[in-house]
Amino acid sequence: MVLRVPTDRGVHTTSLKVRFYELDPYDHVNHANYFSYFEAARVEWLAEAGWGLDVMKERGLLLVVVEARARFSTPARYGETLTIHTWVEEAGRVKTAWRQVMGRGDDQVARLDIVAAFTDLDGRPIRTPPEFAAVFAR
Amino acid sequence: MVLRVPTDRGVHTTSLKVRFYELDPYDHVNHANYFSYFEAARVEWLAEAGWGLDVMKERGLLLVVVEARARFSTPARYGETLTIHTWVEEAGRVKTAWRQVMGRGDDQVARLDIVAAFTDLDGRPIRTPPEFAAVFAR
Amino acid sequence: MVLRVPTDRGVHTTSLKVRFYELDPYDHVNHANYFSYFEAARVEWLAEAGWGLDVMKERGLLLVVVEARARFSTPARYGETLTIHTWVEEAGRVKTAWRQVMGRGDDQVARLDIVAAFTDLDGRPIRTPPEFAAVFAR
Amino acid sequence: MVLRVPTDRGVHTTSLKVRFYELDPYDHVNHANYFSYFEAARVEWLAEAGWGLDVMKERGLLLVVVEARARFSTPARYGETLTIHTWVEEAGRVKTAWRQVMGRGDDQVARLDIVAAFTDLDGRPIRTPPEFAAVFAR
Repeated sequence: MVLRVPTDRGVHTTSLKVRFYELDPYDHVNHANYFSYFEAARVEWLAEAGWGLDVMKERGLLLVVVEARARFSTPARYGETLTIHTWVEEAGRVKTAWRQVMGRGDDQVARLDIVAAFTDLDGRPIRTPPEFAAVFAR
Repeated sequence: MVLRVPTDRGVHTTSLKVRFYELDPYDHVNHANYFSYFEAARVEWLAEAGWGLDVMKERGLLLVVVEARARFSTPARYGETLTIHTWVEEAGRVKTAWRQVMGRGDDQVARLDIVAAFTDLDGRPIRTPPEFAAVFAR
Repeated sequence: MVLRVPTDRGVHTTSLKVRFYELDPYDHVNHANYFSYFEAARVEWLAEAGWGLDVMKERGLLLVVVEARARFSTPARYGETLTIHTWVEEAGRVKTAWRQVMGRGDDQVARLDIVAAFTDLDGRPIRTPPEFAAVFAR
Repeated sequence: MVLRVPTDRGVHTTSLKVRFYELDPYDHVNHANYFSYFEAARVEWLAEAGWGLDVMKERGLLLVVVEARARFSTPARYGETLTIHTWVEEAGRVKTAWRQVMGRGDDQVARLDIVAAFTDLDGRPIRTPPEFAAVFAR
């Protein structure tokens, strides 16, 4: 399956290398690790926009995953370098929908649709802070 | 949100305790770990039906996750005991759909819909082996 | 190798079950996970003494690992239930030395010697709080 | 503490970036992950010498960790790039001793002394294969 990335909006691209301990007895990256890889890409994207973890916490903000839907196309293996493309599909007043695709070259390894929402440090849902409108519209 | 488990089919129930190192800086279980918890429950369920990892491998079978859809209702925290209920929603000739719910008492923590498929040891898709019809229909 | 536990002091015993995703391509529990298992046992031991993570943080205390020495005797595998025995070898004014042994029945799977020290929330070393003298002497 | 790397023998150097999900509630990289980081470096080093996992397995060889001793100097945090230097201290007929240091720039984050031994695929100890004499003497 060919990797598809939109050309009409800002897309963040990063890459990471599969590490030995992320494999399972099938010699594949265990599927739960893909969620961690995708998370690493989202967190990096936010940090590059000035919203590192530390800044978020100081501002009393958490961004939590509400829903996640993943398709796994082909397994990733040891030593491969995977590229992750991240973009925001829709930024609502409360929830934000992101799409992320992971590839080995032009080949799609996995795709993730995720819905995230802001909460305060006690976990109470809050509206998307206005500063993030610009961040998410990049 | 109240946990809902079907009464018209076989449901496998297991529980596990959240460990410290599964938390992230939010003091929550990191969302990727839920997928590992759910996997642990599925693997346990299969092993109890006589299809442990070792048996599967000897028979040249892998069961791989093709699609996963999760909803996260409330965060899990350190030391909590979580109960996971697993059942098969639909067992097709090639793909099998499972639903799993994770609870803290009667409270739903997360829900997972997963589609899995059998492959041979080289990753080539194969039909669901006939022996599994009975397993999945429990 | 036979598991040896002291009889002249308080020993905390707990057990945990190996989960599928903790295995590596050798079908063994990856060695890094043993450190997590041992940590889970120490944290449980502290929590049972009234020093859960939350209490520690409220009091401005972190307990960090300074040194760790492990011997791996036999590999742990999927589905095994491992027992972990934890005790304090020596509680100093600044550092505390713990020993932990992990077994499968009477067989030693691994042994860990760990040195831990208290810091404040900014990571500055502090003396072992007096309340812990009693905890560590159990 | 200043990082020290020998100049009289071959040293393998690699680097990796701390990922969000590797943090624990202290905002530090959980100590168990350091063992994974160090392992990633050793595996990379072996693969670059022509002894990737796949090659090892085909040859019926496993390299297992027998003993590990770590010192943790300063915590690693999110987003940091850590450099790992790996070398062989002593290659015996059965066991091999490695030293690894992890740094943030010139600052030592952690140091690991590890003893590893070869086994066959059933876990029986075997002598270090002669081909590895050259590998370890690089």
